[in-house]
Amino acid sequence: MSAGSTPLIFVHGYWHGSWCWSEVTARVTANGRPAVAVDMAGHGLRACRPRCLTRRPLAPEAVATEVSPVADVDLDQAGDLLVSQIKEVGRGGPVTVVAHSMGGTVLTRAAQLAPELVAHAVYLTAFMPASEVPALACVQMPENEGELVAPSVRADPAVIGALRFDLASDDPDYRRQLRDAFFGDVDPAVADAALGLLTPDAPVGIALGATTLTRDGWGSVPRTYITCARDMAIRPALQHRFIRDADAAFPGNPTSVIALDSSHSPFLSMPGQVADIVAELG
Amino acid sequence: MSAGSTPLIFVHGYWHGSWCWSEVTARVTANGRPAVAVDMAGHGLRACRPRCLTRRPLAPEAVATEVSPVADVDLDQAGDLLVSQIKEVGRGGPVTVVAHSMGGTVLTRAAQLAPELVAHAVYLTAFMPASEVPALACVQMPENEGELVAPSVRADPAVIGALRFDLASDDPDYRRQLRDAFFGDVDPAVADAALGLLTPDAPVGIALGATTLTRDGWGSVPRTYITCARDMAIRPALQHRFIRDADAAFPGNPTSVIALDSSHSPFLSMPGQVADIVAELG
Repeated sequence: MSAGSTPLIFVHGYWHGSWCWSEVTARVTANGRPAVAVDMAGHGLRACRPRCLTRRPLAPEAVATEVSPVADVDLDQAGDLLVSQIKEVGRGGPVTVVAHSMGGTVLTRAAQLAPELVAHAVYLTAFMPASEVPALACVQMPENEGELVAPSVRADPAVIGALRFDLASDDPDYRRQLRDAFFGDVDPAVADAALGLLTPDAPVGIALGATTLTRDGWGSVPRTYITCARDMAIRPALQHRFIRDADAAFPGNPTSVIALDSSHSPFLSMPGQVADIVAELG
Repeated sequence: MSAGSTPLIFVHGYWHGSWCWSEVTARVTANGRPAVAVDMAGHGLRACRPRCLTRRPLAPEAVATEVSPVADVDLDQAGDLLVSQIKEVGRGGPVTVVAHSMGGTVLTRAAQLAPELVAHAVYLTAFMPASEVPALACVQMPENEGELVAPSVRADPAVIGALRFDLASDDPDYRRQLRDAFFGDVDPAVADAALGLLTPDAPVGIALGATTLTRDGWGSVPRTYITCARDMAIRPALQHRFIRDADAAFPGNPTSVIALDSSHSPFLSMPGQVADIVAELG
């Protein structure tokens, strides 16, 4: 199989699902490259929703305390699932994986577990944590100052086991903050549709997990980082720190960097550009 | 391009989105066939949600009367969108389209508009209405007796312009009815995840539209109907009436029929079998 026909797997971030890639995969497939968007553990067709958020009337104390039905989902489970998805789509051969946001943490784990199956690891404004650093620690780094995701979380993840949004809220300020966090440059109608497709509980276990990176493992996989300059969920300074730390740890395999002038969600605001970029990657 | 590599487009039904096909497209792509799931007009990333269903406290009279934000979506718009998606994915060449449920009405329109672009029209327990018959008339045919979708609709479509579900309902009987209507043989956790991804308002305009079918248009396109024997949304007798009526109207181009023993949603309950079937079709 030539590099040009290496299958592409797209992995979404927290709260999202395979649906967020539909405009990108249509364009990539039209260009003759096999492409599939998958659901991460605890998301999409694998999501579980807490009862409290649709209880009528709403019980605010339940929103803050109901243990999440995805509280048991962790990075081990998410990484193993992605490896199995890679094996299915690639039929045992290598696959190029494009990961967004928290999907990057899962890609890093999968590439460390099975570096021979990942032809190229592509991080689209994604978490690319250094060895033994949990993604949750990166969220809180000074380079991420100003991000709008943590202020939108409606319960203590240590109590409920998830990062919970109140997606059914009709508070216009809260809805605007979510839109600004993820979809700042996205057509407002598309942003509203996307907000409607998010799942409320993202399993904190994925962000609490860490991966020991080795030179023969993750360090051996070609990687590209696509930066997004107007990202209010993973701030640009944090994106650049990921790149800097990776290149310091594995100087023999430096990160290729491509810049987009987009919000956190270029798959919605500029899907054609995202498709063109990934179609060029081996 | 050989028949084996003709791209596949998957079109979901009312309330669903591209997300419902993720298990099928992963398997089809693994087998080397280009495959894309798209969003129908008014659905997925093109959905608009009424405010009433997330208003707190819930105002039941608003659920019954708020005009749907997708009330202006009709079969003309949906058919034109699918033709444009076919042109994008096929790059001007023919594409095989697999449509589920109300997606069949849209496929019929697209195939009549551009028969040269549809290599094969595949109806997976889908509406396949006869010439000049709106899908909504089929819903009410005696062959569809016992279906559970119409009883789940929470407002008069003639008033609000949509078929509205109260998806945030915490009434266990109502939730069970929705599950029985669509996902009877689906793993309960997956069914719950799917219910969470439905959009509440399906634009009635698509079901009100009709298409004049001609021998050189829709009548010239090879077609396959995949029946689902335990479907509680489109009852088996109605599925068979679609096939009978089509074959009577276009006896020179009879329908190929494949039977599945599934509920309305074999893409969730038996995705491997669905993938194997469509992968064999030209």
